[in-house]
This record gives sequence, structure tokens and C-alpha cells, in this order.
Amino acid sequence: MTMRNEDMEGVIFVIFGASGDLAVRKLIPALYQLYKGKYLPDNFAILGASRSSYTDEEFRDKVFYDSEFIKSEKKSDDASTFVNRLSYLPLQTAETASYAKLKSRLEILDEQYSIGGNYIYYLSTPPFLYETIPACLADHGLNNEERGWKRLVIEKPFGYDLDTAIALNKNIKQFFTEDQIYRIDHYLGKETVQNLLVTRFSNGIFEPLWNRNYIQHIQITNAENLTVGSRGGYYDKSGALRDMFQNHLMQIIAHIAMEPPIAANADAIRNEKLKLLQSIRPLSEEDIENHVIRGQYMSSQIKGERVNGYREEEGVPDDSRTETFVALKFFIDNWRWADVPFYVRSGKALPTKVTEVVITFKDPPHNLFRKEMVYNDNNQLIIRIQPDEGLLLKFGMKVPGSGFEVKDIGLDFHYSDLTEADVPTAYARLLMDVVKGDATLYARGDSVEEAWRFVKPILEAWKNKPELKVKGYPAGSWGPPDVGPLIEADDLTWRNPCSELTTEGSSIEL
Amino acid sequence: MTMRNEDMEGVIFVIFGASGDLAVRKLIPALYQLYKGKYLPDNFAILGASRSSYTDEEFRDKVFYDSEFIKSEKKSDDASTFVNRLSYLPLQTAETASYAKLKSRLEILDEQYSIGGNYIYYLSTPPFLYETIPACLADHGLNNEERGWKRLVIEKPFGYDLDTAIALNKNIKQFFTEDQIYRIDHYLGKETVQNLLVTRFSNGIFEPLWNRNYIQHIQITNAENLTVGSRGGYYDKSGALRDMFQNHLMQIIAHIAMEPPIAANADAIRNEKLKLLQSIRPLSEEDIENHVIRGQYMSSQIKGERVNGYREEEGVPDDSRTETFVALKFFIDNWRWADVPFYVRSGKALPTKVTEVVITFKDPPHNLFRKEMVYNDNNQLIIRIQPDEGLLLKFGMKVPGSGFEVKDIGLDFHYSDLTEADVPTAYARLLMDVVKGDATLYARGDSVEEAWRFVKPILEAWKNKPELKVKGYPAGSWGPPDVGPLIEADDLTWRNPCSELTTEGSSIEL
Repeated sequence: MTMRNEDMEGVIFVIFGASGDLAVRKLIPALYQLYKGKYLPDNFAILGASRSSYTDEEFRDKVFYDSEFIKSEKKSDDASTFVNRLSYLPLQTAETASYAKLKSRLEILDEQYSIGGNYIYYLSTPPFLYETIPACLADHGLNNEERGWKRLVIEKPFGYDLDTAIALNKNIKQFFTEDQIYRIDHYLGKETVQNLLVTRFSNGIFEPLWNRNYIQHIQITNAENLTVGSRGGYYDKSGALRDMFQNHLMQIIAHIAMEPPIAANADAIRNEKLKLLQSIRPLSEEDIENHVIRGQYMSSQIKGERVNGYREEEGVPDDSRTETFVALKFFIDNWRWADVPFYVRSGKALPTKVTEVVITFKDPPHNLFRKEMVYNDNNQLIIRIQPDEGLLLKFGMKVPGSGFEVKDIGLDFHYSDLTEADVPTAYARLLMDVVKGDATLYARGDSVEEAWRFVKPILEAWKNKPELKVKGYPAGSWGPPDVGPLIEADDLTWRNPCSELTTEGSSIEL
Repeated sequence: MTMRNEDMEGVIFVIFGASGDLAVRKLIPALYQLYKGKYLPDNFAILGASRSSYTDEEFRDKVFYDSEFIKSEKKSDDASTFVNRLSYLPLQTAETASYAKLKSRLEILDEQYSIGGNYIYYLSTPPFLYETIPACLADHGLNNEERGWKRLVIEKPFGYDLDTAIALNKNIKQFFTEDQIYRIDHYLGKETVQNLLVTRFSNGIFEPLWNRNYIQHIQITNAENLTVGSRGGYYDKSGALRDMFQNHLMQIIAHIAMEPPIAANADAIRNEKLKLLQSIRPLSEEDIENHVIRGQYMSSQIKGERVNGYREEEGVPDDSRTETFVALKFFIDNWRWADVPFYVRSGKALPTKVTEVVITFKDPPHNLFRKEMVYNDNNQLIIRIQPDEGLLLKFGMKVPGSGFEVKDIGLDFHYSDLTEADVPTAYARLLMDVVKGDATLYARGDSVEEAWRFVKPILEAWKNKPELKVKGYPAGSWGPPDVGPLIEADDLTWRNPCSELTTEGSSIEL
């Protein structure tokens, strides 16, 4: 991090939904991390707002002193300065009249800390408020940039499907310009995701190989070993395609596959990402039937212990057809990627927690060492996004001794080795960027819509065609039995970052 | 090592010069390593021959029981079986009459151990005997392959210059065919050198980059931290160009730069190596003046201790002009390497002991992260040949935090990590190959001559042009002051595997 707080403009963070889970778990800890690292301006204040009626002190206890997510010393001078900047305003977030209070509180804080009119509105609220809050802010002129800037941060989901996403963007843009809107996708805050651009474009050795001439296929695995647990009520309205694929995974695909941007700035990079998303070949009805698999985890025994099936989770209907797993194959229709298959799978209740991209290179054109060779693997570059962010390059070397026996070796790099300083959390990184006005790592409205455009036919087919079954899989397995054949039909295999758990359970069609 | 001793034919090793340094230090220990690893046939015998008059027992004490180069248990059953196969014959190696004794001793050993007539003659003798011994062997029919094969192993130097090399080859070939001749270059026995072929040709990711489109330049450093010490008398007749460059380093260059062979066998690989050596652009008089540097180490103070200059070494004349250091630049005139400069330096009394090849790739064509970038280095693949054989791939990754600051990181691989078994020494590996009749790692006569053809104009210019000075350098430094400019003139720098020692000494022209 090169920018320190000396030259930074003042800012007030207004957190809507400040009593909620995200604020307590992520936002306040991230802001405190930035504060301690001197990445916040000297002139800052944080104002929590929600319907709960806390006093400033109660709010400070809740989000700081009593918080299990603030790990460091809470009684230091640093801590008390930070906490003094925290205040709270009870607010009827859906009622515009109530925003007069907000306006006057902001005026007081602004004067007290010489803020200069720069406000960040962070919407950590249920999505239906994304349409209300911007309008209420506008009613009171709080979107006005005549004195200082105003930025609006919204959390996913950005819409529920293509139509609602278009409507949401349209609505917000009545009150805030695209430049003021920061759609936060915390996956884009991960160092490895940003590093994809550096790895590709500041080295001489990768980009020449980064195309259909040398790459055989690309796979992306996003595995979660947890079940939905108590979040069933929320999750059942979403599912793996909406919850992970449409946003995080499509953004990762864009980073891996995009053309070089003309510059390393927000507009140039987001233009290229949009182009890439526009180049993904739309899935036909046949593709959806054959190359998209939806699954739902079923109860199983893992190490002798019974794990609930999805339909048994709290808040999930007994006949839910929401997918907790999705796997699909697609192509990108451009010069770089023509005929290179991309395979993506994402699910809950899988054997491990990992997100990784696997670039598999083609065989050498002529197999010189055929006879004596025990090496059947293709070269692979594995980009681990979480946990333990890093790179692994796998290729063949000679086994010591006579002849030319070849063995797979890995050049391994852990991102945590690169620096002794703390790597900022994804949220800290993204909050810092919004203070600086750098939108590179935020999703732009057009690419959000483009991603919805790709998943739209899948959502529609699943809704309208009962013959597209939901495939059951035992919790703790690598998904439904059809997932292997999806890639094996092309003579390829999934790279499973850990071996199968021993699970007993059923895989029936639902 | 895949071949074990069950199906192997019997063999007698005849070591000429068996009382010498090489036999004691390298050959007997290597044979013992092979024996213990079951890489020798059950039917084997080792017969030492030289002018010294040892009994079998005295010879066994000298090369085995009293040897500091045999590290393992010397009193085991294994050891005594091995030692029993060692015997000795005093021999006037230059007198053909004396070979009748050798013949009858071989017949006795052959019958005793059911050898079947397979003999390896290892010439660990002064080079002048390379012309005598083959003739004497032939006089007694010991080159005859009617019953069993006969193989002749000769140590470098293979000639003293182009003319003597041609004469030597011609002479030996009167008595042994090229297929029977094994010119040993222990550098070719090193795993990393062989691994160059596997790295290049059994992976999909390297060969596409392995050419003038992506490689900026290649440098090879061969550094020895020792001085010539007591070997001054021998060394003064040779020098760095003859002792290291013409053989070891030109063979390494051939491995790095050759085209893919049609198969992984001795003929195919040696054909390609020859072609590569034939493609090196001959040095013009101007090139030799400007792009070849010869140096000689001078006395210096290293860590307060005085180190002798070369001319002070035992056996070295006071006015010696023999080079202990050589650095040069050349090009390879073919489609793959046109315009890619190669830089090689080799010397004694340098700061460290290392042999490594550094492949430096070109900059990316467009520097996306220019403004915020602190990364000025090109991607490099460093192939360490000794010590600690391995690979290091250096490229840029993003420093955690805001912006796109880029830092050099290394993916590191140590060859010793690949296997738990002992890596055979280069000599063991090569002796095993000669038993199997695999000449892949032995130098063929035509390529030896080709390498001499390349150095010939340098040797002649140094001899005939007194204006081509010998440049003094302080022992413990990276060579004469001109060595930096050789590469810096092309806006490049040497990669020094360790930092400069603090030496005080002079660098004057001699």
C-alpha cells in the first residue's frame, strides 16, 4: 500500500444496516485495520444507521468492545481514538422523512471533523432497500456533489435476474451516476484475483502461452465444505448459480480470459472485462440440457456423523429445488479462446474449502520420451484464490538416474511469503479503494447485467423444464455423479485439490 | 534408474592409470556406488593397470580400504565382495610387448567370472597415451569384438587444438570404431544437463518460449572459487578456454540451444548437438578483439588473508600468459536464435563455485503497470548445474495492497527434492551408461572437432597478437574490469549468484 493518510481528503462512512451481521463481522474490523495501518485520512467519522435504537455507547460496545471480530488490543490510545469516531443514528431507512435527521447529523460530524462534504454510503441492508435509500438520500440532497463527493457502495445481490438487475441499475442511476456507484464483490478484493492481471501482463513468459494455441482447457473449482446451516431461509431464494457463479466466478473468468487493457485503470480494465463477458457463447437449450448440472446435497454420514441434507435445513422447504451445486461447461467465442473449453463447478457441502483456477496446457506436439515415460500429465498453472493464495506451476522433470523417466514437479509460491506486512482483508482493500475513488475492483453496471444475461437461459430452463432434474449428492462428496462425465466426455478430468471424504449417502434425482 | 543387474551382461573394467588421482577419487568410488545400488552385473571384475608395482592387496588398500573417497562401511559383506573383484596388473603402458600379460590376465578373469568377452578400457592416463594404448590393445587383438564387445573410454582433453583433435580421432579410429569410443565429459553426467532435454521437450510450456521471439539473451556462468593451487604445472598448458569452455561449456550450450531431436537416443541427440555447434557464428578477428576477454588472477587480500597470484603458483612460469578466466559473446546463426546474444564466462579464483545458465526473457511488449511499477527485471529461468542442481523461475507478482506495485518472486526447485534415493554421481551415471552401451551422454568425435573449430581462431589470435592483452584480476573478484562492459554494452547485466567478496588487489594488463 503506497498511499498513506497525509494527503487524503476527509470522509464520513455512513453504514446503513449498521447493526447487522456484515457490519459487525467485516466492515468495522476492516475500517479499524485501515485506521491502524494509517490508510484512513485523519479526518474521518463512521456513522452507523439502522432501525435498532442504540446510543452511541451501545453501538460502540456492540461493534467494537464486545466484538469477537476485533482481535487486537481494545484499550489502547489508538483504539479509543477510533472508537470516538464511531457514532450511531436510529433511522427508519425506508422513510424519507427520517433522512432529515441523517442530514443534520452529517452536518454536525462534517463540521466537527472538517470532512469537506465527502460521504460514503454503504448499503449493508436487505436488497429491497437498494431502491429506497438512494431515493431518500436524493430527496435531501445527500447525493449532491457540489461540496465534496458522494459515493454509494452496494453489496450483492445486484438484482435477482437480468430484468431486476436492469431495473435496479436504472433506478439507482436516477439519483447517482455510474461513477458514484461502487458495487462491491469481495472476491475482487482478494489479492490473487488482482494478481491475475499482474501475472499475465507484467511478465514476458505467460501471455505468449495464454491462448488457444497452448492452453488445452481451463477449470475453476469453488468448493465450500460447509452446508448452508442456519442461512437456509436466505439461501433458498438464491442458489449456487446466483450466489456464486453469476457474480464472483464470472468476474474471475473475466480476469483470466480478458484481453490486455489499454491501461491499468478502472475504465480500461472494466471495458475489457465487459468485452470478455460479451464474448462468452450463450448457452443453447441443448447446452443447458447437456452441459449444465444442478445438484443439491443430501444427508450423509461423514466420519460416522450424520450431516443434514439441504431440505432438512432450517428455513428450507421440504420440496426445495434450489441448487446448492452447479457445474457447467462453456466456450468463449473470440480469437484467443475459440475451442478452448471452460469448466466451472461451485457448491456447498463439498469435501474441502477451496477456490482455484487450473490452466491446463496442451501436450508437447511430439512426445520425444514416449517409451520410457511415466509422465502423463499436462503442464498446469494452478492459481489458488483461497485459502492460502498462491501459484503452483506443474511440469515434468527427469527422474535422477539412467534413461529419461519423467516426473511431475511443482514450483510453488504462497502469496503470504511475498510480504511481511499483513495482507489487508478483501473488505479493507475495497474500502480503501472507495475512499480513494478507485473503482477498478468494483463491478460496473454493464458487466453485472452481462453476467445476468449469460445465466438467464439457465434460470429459465430450470424454472420451466421439470425434466431438468436436480441431482442429489451426498454431503461431503464432489457433487452429483454427472459432474465427472461432464469433463470426462472430453477426455479430461477434474483436478480435486483433496481426496474424496468417506461419505455414505444417496445421489438420487429430485 | 530403471535397469537393475539381473539381465546385464558381464563386464571387466580395465582402468589404465589406476594408481592415479582420478581412479582413486572418482572411478573406484563410482563403481562401488553402482555395485551397491545393484547397477553392475553380477559378473564383473575391475582390473587396475599402471606402471606402479602394486600387489592386488596393496591396490585394494590404496583405492578402497585406505581411500578417503569411499565413505560407507568398508568391512561389510558387500564391501568384501566388491573388493574381491578388484585386482591389479603392473604394466608398461607404452610398450606393446607388455600387453601380452594384460591379455592373459583378462582371459583368466573372463573365465573366473564368466564375463563373455565384454571389456571396458578406461584411459585415465596422460593424453599422450591415448594414441599408444589403443594401438597396443589392437596389437594383441584386444579391440576385437568377435567374442563380446570392447569399449574405450577416454578422458579429456580430446586434443590440444583442432589439428591435434583431428589427428587423435583419426589415430584411435584405426583401432576402434566411433561406436566403441566413449569420450567422457563428466559435465554431461550431471542430472541437470540431461534434464535440460526433458525440461525443454516433455513440457508444453517451455518450448513455445524457447526462441528469439521471447528470449532476450542467454548467459552462462561457470565460476570456481579455488585457485589452481598445486595443479599449476598441468593447468598452465591448458587454460580456461581449453579446460572448460571448449568441452563442458560448449556441450551445455548445445543442450540449451539445439533443435528437438527426432528421438531420445544417442545418435539423434548427438546429431542435433553437432548441428547446433555448426551453427555458431565463427568469431571474426574483430569479434575476438572486442568480445573475447582473457584474464589471469593476481594476488589479493581476501578477508585479510593474502592469496597467491597465478604466476606465483607452483609450476607456473613467472611470465605465463595462460588465461585463468575467459569471457566471450557469440551468436548462433539459425532461425531459432538469430540476434540473441549468448554470453559465457568461466574462471578460477572467482567469488564462489557455481555453474548456471540464465535464460532472460524479453520484456512484455507493452508495460501496462508502468507508472506504479518498481519492477525492472525481466523474467528469468535459471538452471543451476552445480552445486545444488535445480531450477529457479523468476517473474513479477503484485505486492499486496492498493495499486499494482510489482515485485520479483522466484519459483524454486531443488533437484535433490525429487527423489529420496541418492542421485548417482556424474561418473557413476556415465560408467553405468558405458556398461549399457548408451553413448547419449558421451561426446562424439565430430562435435569435439566442431568445438575446437570454434575456439581455433581465438587460440591463434592469442598466440599471434601480443596486443590482445591478458587482463589481470584480483583473486576473489568476478574477473577483469572489462567483463562488465562486455554485456553492459548491450544494456544487460551479469547475474552474479553471490555478491562480490571484499578483495584488495590489482587489475593490470599483463
